[in-house]
Amino acid sequence: MIESLVQLELGDRSYPILIESGLLSSGRTQVESSDVKFSVWSKLVEELRGRRGLIVVDENVAPLYLAMTQRLCVELGMVVDHCLLSAGEMTKSTSALQSIWDLCAERGHTRRSVIVAVGGGVIGDLAGFAAATYMRGLDWIQIPTTLMAQVDSSVGGKTGINLAAGKNLVGAFWQPRAVLIDPAVLSTLDARQYRAGLAEVVKYAVIMDEGFFDWLERRQSQILERDSQVLVELIARCCRLKAQVVGDDEREQSGRRAILNYGHTFGHALEAIVGYGKLLHGEAVACGMDLAMQTACELGHVNKDLVLRQRKLLQAFGLPVDWRVTSAAVGNDQVELVVQVIAAMTRDKKNDGRGVQLILPCALGRVESVNWPGNALIQRVLETSP
Amino acid sequence: MIESLVQLELGDRSYPILIESGLLSSGRTQVESSDVKFSVWSKLVEELRGRRGLIVVDENVAPLYLAMTQRLCVELGMVVDHCLLSAGEMTKSTSALQSIWDLCAERGHTRRSVIVAVGGGVIGDLAGFAAATYMRGLDWIQIPTTLMAQVDSSVGGKTGINLAAGKNLVGAFWQPRAVLIDPAVLSTLDARQYRAGLAEVVKYAVIMDEGFFDWLERRQSQILERDSQVLVELIARCCRLKAQVVGDDEREQSGRRAILNYGHTFGHALEAIVGYGKLLHGEAVACGMDLAMQTACELGHVNKDLVLRQRKLLQAFGLPVDWRVTSAAVGNDQVELVVQVIAAMTRDKKNDGRGVQLILPCALGRVESVNWPGNALIQRVLETSP
Repeated sequence: MIESLVQLELGDRSYPILIESGLLSSGRTQVESSDVKFSVWSKLVEELRGRRGLIVVDENVAPLYLAMTQRLCVELGMVVDHCLLSAGEMTKSTSALQSIWDLCAERGHTRRSVIVAVGGGVIGDLAGFAAATYMRGLDWIQIPTTLMAQVDSSVGGKTGINLAAGKNLVGAFWQPRAVLIDPAVLSTLDARQYRAGLAEVVKYAVIMDEGFFDWLERRQSQILERDSQVLVELIARCCRLKAQVVGDDEREQSGRRAILNYGHTFGHALEAIVGYGKLLHGEAVACGMDLAMQTACELGHVNKDLVLRQRKLLQAFGLPVDWRVTSAAVGNDQVELVVQVIAAMTRDKKNDGRGVQLILPCALGRVESVNWPGNALIQRVLETSP
Repeated sequence: MIESLVQLELGDRSYPILIESGLLSSGRTQVESSDVKFSVWSKLVEELRGRRGLIVVDENVAPLYLAMTQRLCVELGMVVDHCLLSAGEMTKSTSALQSIWDLCAERGHTRRSVIVAVGGGVIGDLAGFAAATYMRGLDWIQIPTTLMAQVDSSVGGKTGINLAAGKNLVGAFWQPRAVLIDPAVLSTLDARQYRAGLAEVVKYAVIMDEGFFDWLERRQSQILERDSQVLVELIARCCRLKAQVVGDDEREQSGRRAILNYGHTFGHALEAIVGYGKLLHGEAVACGMDLAMQTACELGHVNKDLVLRQRKLLQAFGLPVDWRVTSAAVGNDQVELVVQVIAAMTRDKKNDGRGVQLILPCALGRVESVNWPGNALIQRVLETSP
């Protein structure tokens, strides 16, 4: 498979997710080779030709992919300038947002301008939120450059920034006009970041697709070698699964989209305790999925084999599965940490008037939403976790 | 007419606009008296009961209406706290927005919280934008307390803030769940602000409703006396007209909503030259409508009688119609001012790749979008304006 197309169906907000190895470097030159790409490309050119674009990029990605992105935009018929930001989670801030707004105004960008976000989740979330709000909403395009962004954060229209009080507290649902994914850019991705992205990949398999889980087990080595054909299929399968969920529940209203939180209630608690940045989001999610699966096992919803099977795959991908990695990072003793994790998991939802819901597997490829099973059970899971 | 109900039809974002004199002070006590109010009230209670609310209010409005708003919210079943802001256009800023975000986080507001904006256009726009973005979107309710907000800015879901570079450059389309309008609060409104609101009222009549224009001419004295029954009807008629336009073109895409810009292209230019705040928005719009009508006359689209008839009504409402009021404010000579006005009118649209469009009357109650008729003609209108 040299390329794949996933369509996210959301009525007049529908958009294509085009996945092709070499997309960024080849641009138009390969268009003729494929009907799929040709149709997406032609529609984009029709929509974008003659419009101004603002590329938003950070200082890590710019040296690698800014020039290619500029060329791609020009081939799509746009006239582009760019906005260069610092790299890192700190950039998902009000001040960086304001700097994009001011720059848009200063350079005379209008409602017809297009924002092009090239980078990982931080840049995608921030630039998407700027697009959602400058002049009450601009069109935008995502070009994700991390595995995490390619399989997860670039699809679904969640945009936003962090506040001092917490992550993603401010934002908007604002769908891009297209997501352009080039797995070839992953060759330059740091190994730890790459592995962290695989945590979300495993998540999609566990919550929705047993066959995909089998496939991941069989393709382990090619995945770790970043084989580009395997990556096109891997990314396309994740995007297709996410597109189904988002198409059913764009704004997290029906509860359907909540299944994507598998491993995240535990994971967010671990991240919050360790301090964001020390434990990568994907690493926290890997530990969180192991804990969630153990919880499901403790409740009798799945058997021990499945706990071990998921753990084995996560470990094969070089991901941590023992939540006590957090202990090394903060130096607290384990008894205290258990209390902190439970406190962090139950804190957020208290004000909501509804209890904490956990997304737990009931079989491989299927999850359910389960009421908080009680602090004692969660404590036991944390204490006995291998 | 003691009350009136306008429904803004936008599919699952539809909402009621309830207009009743004494609504804020009487609260539930008058519910039984009317079927219209009863049905709106019951639905609101059903939706809001048990939820937390954050009232956003400025220091001018708080002493007058915060306590009443709190009581109203409690009667609707909410548990409320509030956020007090400085009064004035400066509050429509990134820093005030951030202060609302931080306060929401600090007080543990969740996605189920409801923002209640009580005040004029500044508070409505700002609080609505905070509602659109905190946790990717909260429900909100508008309680407008100026005539301008009651007849115009509270209806239609435009929210936003200003940047240093210009007004309303950042924002979102985010519809409230309800607009609750009490014309009795206008008794405390400053006379100049009240008159400024009447400019938008005249606008609705000129662009959409000849019968309403006749009605305004006949009811001049009652309107100026702020007769509460006449005000209920006046506000309801404006809201009904605006609801039609917004229902057809929520996001300003079809061009239909652009008719609301009648008088505003001239008006914004005058405001920008004088400096925001010296000339009230409504005053600038009044001058702008006089200039737009003269332009239409110059083009032969309407006759001189209509220019005079609109001018007479604006003057009866105590509004300025001679754009040279700006000259007094900035002290520039008239030749220079004419150049500045034309430059300001043509500046914004230059980057858009499309020319300036003017909304001009073609008859009383009907407008059309007209291509920029050339600097020379606009210059003549400005120079010969009475």
